[in-house]
Amino acid sequence: MFKNPFFKNKGPIKLKLIFSACDLNEEKNKINDLIYDVKNLTDSSIKDITFFNSIRYKDDANKTKAKYCITTKKLSSFLPKTCKLLVVNNVLLSLSKVTKIFYPESVSDNFQINLKPLTKKIIKQNKLKIGKNILVGKNVTVGKNSSIGHNTIIENNVVIGNNCSIGSNVILRNTIIKNNVHILDNCVIGKKGFGFYPNNNKNFRYPQIGCVIINDNCEIGCGSTIDRGSLSNTVIGKNTFFDNQIHIAHNVKIGDNCVVAGQVGIAGSSIIGNNVMIGGQAGISGHLKIGNNVHIGGGSGVIKNIPDNSKVMGYPATEIKNFLKMKNNNDWNN
Amino acid sequence: MFKNPFFKNKGPIKLKLIFSACDLNEEKNKINDLIYDVKNLTDSSIKDITFFNSIRYKDDANKTKAKYCITTKKLSSFLPKTCKLLVVNNVLLSLSKVTKIFYPESVSDNFQINLKPLTKKIIKQNKLKIGKNILVGKNVTVGKNSSIGHNTIIENNVVIGNNCSIGSNVILRNTIIKNNVHILDNCVIGKKGFGFYPNNNKNFRYPQIGCVIINDNCEIGCGSTIDRGSLSNTVIGKNTFFDNQIHIAHNVKIGDNCVVAGQVGIAGSSIIGNNVMIGGQAGISGHLKIGNNVHIGGGSGVIKNIPDNSKVMGYPATEIKNFLKMKNNNDWNN
Amino acid sequence: MFKNPFFKNKGPIKLKLIFSACDLNEEKNKINDLIYDVKNLTDSSIKDITFFNSIRYKDDANKTKAKYCITTKKLSSFLPKTCKLLVVNNVLLSLSKVTKIFYPESVSDNFQINLKPLTKKIIKQNKLKIGKNILVGKNVTVGKNSSIGHNTIIENNVVIGNNCSIGSNVILRNTIIKNNVHILDNCVIGKKGFGFYPNNNKNFRYPQIGCVIINDNCEIGCGSTIDRGSLSNTVIGKNTFFDNQIHIAHNVKIGDNCVVAGQVGIAGSSIIGNNVMIGGQAGISGHLKIGNNVHIGGGSGVIKNIPDNSKVMGYPATEIKNFLKMKNNNDWNN
Repeated sequence: MFKNPFFKNKGPIKLKLIFSACDLNEEKNKINDLIYDVKNLTDSSIKDITFFNSIRYKDDANKTKAKYCITTKKLSSFLPKTCKLLVVNNVLLSLSKVTKIFYPESVSDNFQINLKPLTKKIIKQNKLKIGKNILVGKNVTVGKNSSIGHNTIIENNVVIGNNCSIGSNVILRNTIIKNNVHILDNCVIGKKGFGFYPNNNKNFRYPQIGCVIINDNCEIGCGSTIDRGSLSNTVIGKNTFFDNQIHIAHNVKIGDNCVVAGQVGIAGSSIIGNNVMIGGQAGISGHLKIGNNVHIGGGSGVIKNIPDNSKVMGYPATEIKNFLKMKNNNDWNN
Repeated sequence: MFKNPFFKNKGPIKLKLIFSACDLNEEKNKINDLIYDVKNLTDSSIKDITFFNSIRYKDDANKTKAKYCITTKKLSSFLPKTCKLLVVNNVLLSLSKVTKIFYPESVSDNFQINLKPLTKKIIKQNKLKIGKNILVGKNVTVGKNSSIGHNTIIENNVVIGNNCSIGSNVILRNTIIKNNVHILDNCVIGKKGFGFYPNNNKNFRYPQIGCVIINDNCEIGCGSTIDRGSLSNTVIGKNTFFDNQIHIAHNVKIGDNCVVAGQVGIAGSSIIGNNVMIGGQAGISGHLKIGNNVHIGGGSGVIKNIPDNSKVMGYPATEIKNFLKMKNNNDWNN
Repeated sequence: MFKNPFFKNKGPIKLKLIFSACDLNEEKNKINDLIYDVKNLTDSSIKDITFFNSIRYKDDANKTKAKYCITTKKLSSFLPKTCKLLVVNNVLLSLSKVTKIFYPESVSDNFQINLKPLTKKIIKQNKLKIGKNILVGKNVTVGKNSSIGHNTIIENNVVIGNNCSIGSNVILRNTIIKNNVHILDNCVIGKKGFGFYPNNNKNFRYPQIGCVIINDNCEIGCGSTIDRGSLSNTVIGKNTFFDNQIHIAHNVKIGDNCVVAGQVGIAGSSIIGNNVMIGGQAGISGHLKIGNNVHIGGGSGVIKNIPDNSKVMGYPATEIKNFLKMKNNNDWNN
């Protein structure tokens, strides 16, 4: 199974500490239970704690293998009986506090200070083409025949495959890049997502322990930002191409062979299928599922799931034939 | 009162020079009047000159304390009798010429050349965490326990508070940052706004003498741009969080505890209340007033004022229930 | 005639190699023909090969002077009889292969590695104001009294005119900048366009051999991206001003005295007239023609040609009076 090299798990953690973080009384008979990790509903094993905060995920909840689940009273009936409950008022806030126990270093997201140039040995050995003023962290891997542009910053544990080209002024952290990938100038990849619990005077930051995975043959256009996942990862499928100034939020998963035009934004946790084409400036709301072979017209605002093989356009995005009908009705030179 | 440390006022200026800049004949009996500063309607004192160019600001005009006002014949009746008039054809062009007399160095906006690394003494004394290749101007203040990422540029007189983190590749000028603020990678904050008078073959740049003020506990996402004010300041309220790739134009004022999602743009001089939530890719036109506790849906285009406690969506943005009605009518899979 | 200094033409090329690249059998009687260059329909001379792939360009096709044209069976009737045909199934894919023969170095777009600081001699001679950590390629020209900000990268053969100011963290390649132009911080200008032929598992990159030309008195806002042309050039007219975070795709041509507000995107090959005003976040689809003196409202999505002197708004963009009628019908506080 994929192991995230970027954040160190302090688990196992005593159940008692977890109850306490959730402002719950510990139950005496479970006082010595140990929990190994915090994961989402799908990825949890019998040793882990998970969370369930929206009816949208009831099918995943029903199948979870997690030992414990942070949830609300209302949602608890969807969980299997094998899963023990931590019933709270604010699931995400409690999750946040629990995640912080497992991954205390994941909350702050400051730059890494002790970066250095790549060693001449690695450059020669792997036939790398390296720009000026590059800064690289510990345990960074750069594959053969790859190139890294000027002023680029690569933080600890980042993995770059073979035959990749990374542009100039790029910042990479918490990111795994496979082979033959092109990251163009000025991208920022792997920063924490925009996740927090609003709290007057001082918001509460959610720990973000996922990473970004960019698969073979992808291209990411200039000035794009791809945030890392919170509990799961942000994933870009094989041979998917991004134009400039794209924003991909945390936990988004994009399939293979997609084409995403300039200035598109995809909000948190949405899942995009294979062979999807997205026109310029289109936006996709969070927690949506876009099927395979979907075409989304430029400028569209997608606010609901879209089934396979659809062509949509407009705001809210609608089947393209409906959109064109509206267009004709409003047409400025008819 | 707040004093802008970034642009030096050459005032007091003789009234005669001001009349001349506006292509007006000096009035003989006032030839020795001295004007101390050029300010907007609200901030002017009895020693200052102001301007009034749109009926939209008639209430402010009525209450101004300014000694002189640049305005049109048509608008002059809204000004108090205590305020003396400079009646011109093009208010903004004349204002521009007058501002240039008070602040001759504010028109060009070239980078500052004589930047240097921070001194080791300050780094040690204030317990700063400092990246590589940082360039800092004169009279820059950095508070205790703050960090500044690699390749970041901080120009003269910028103020950064305590416990702040400034990312890598950031450019800060004409900016005052309070405590516990996070500025993420690749932001450009404090450049001149997009203000000029169109003029065939060579546009006429408006002097921009304001600054950017970012209050306690804010976070500004990667690749965002916040332009400084022209006559007033651009202000971000306390505990307001921005996602990536936001653009904030000159003179915008945003309240406390706002949440602004990715790729949002807010045009010049709009005022946003407290506790406002703005969805991804939404746009807000210039010179608007958005109330407190407003929710603006992702992708919306706001082209008029919005009262407190509203929820709006669409383009043009409309009450959300109207938008959803439209949505159902057009729905692609009904 | 304008000569692109950035990509070296390996022509003349034997016709036989071109036929072979298109998977066509060479015709025996033309076996010794030499072709000098590959150009678009309008720019081709009697020595060149061109392409014709869309009925949209039938008028240009009819007038082309090219000796050969890559096209489809269906479109071939629009070409003049003097033009000899290479009939293929996928015009753009064949074009791409042919272009690669003429310009083999234009496919990859990696950063240039052997950049150096500007020489003190040139700085002194031309009275340049130069920031720290600047990297400059071979044969770069910088005119008198120009300034270049910190960390800026200028690749081989770039031309910068007199009295220009280039900001900090800017990347310029394949770009010609005339006089008195301002390029603000963090722009990336002249990278390859987002052009390729989708191909499962590994897309096929189209060679992009054009450049970017920015004419006198322009200003390009922070964080903007302007891609170079594919066969023709991307051109910004005189005294055209861009706000921040603009994206201009390959082959776009923008006229003189235009004003483009923040976060606008213009897709490939569209042509914009003179004196056009484009509001914030507006998007213009590819291959469109926008006339002179057009006003496009903020947030608009333009998906068809717009005649001279129009004012449009909405998505799809429609005459502004129609848009306002719709707006009133839907108005949230009526």
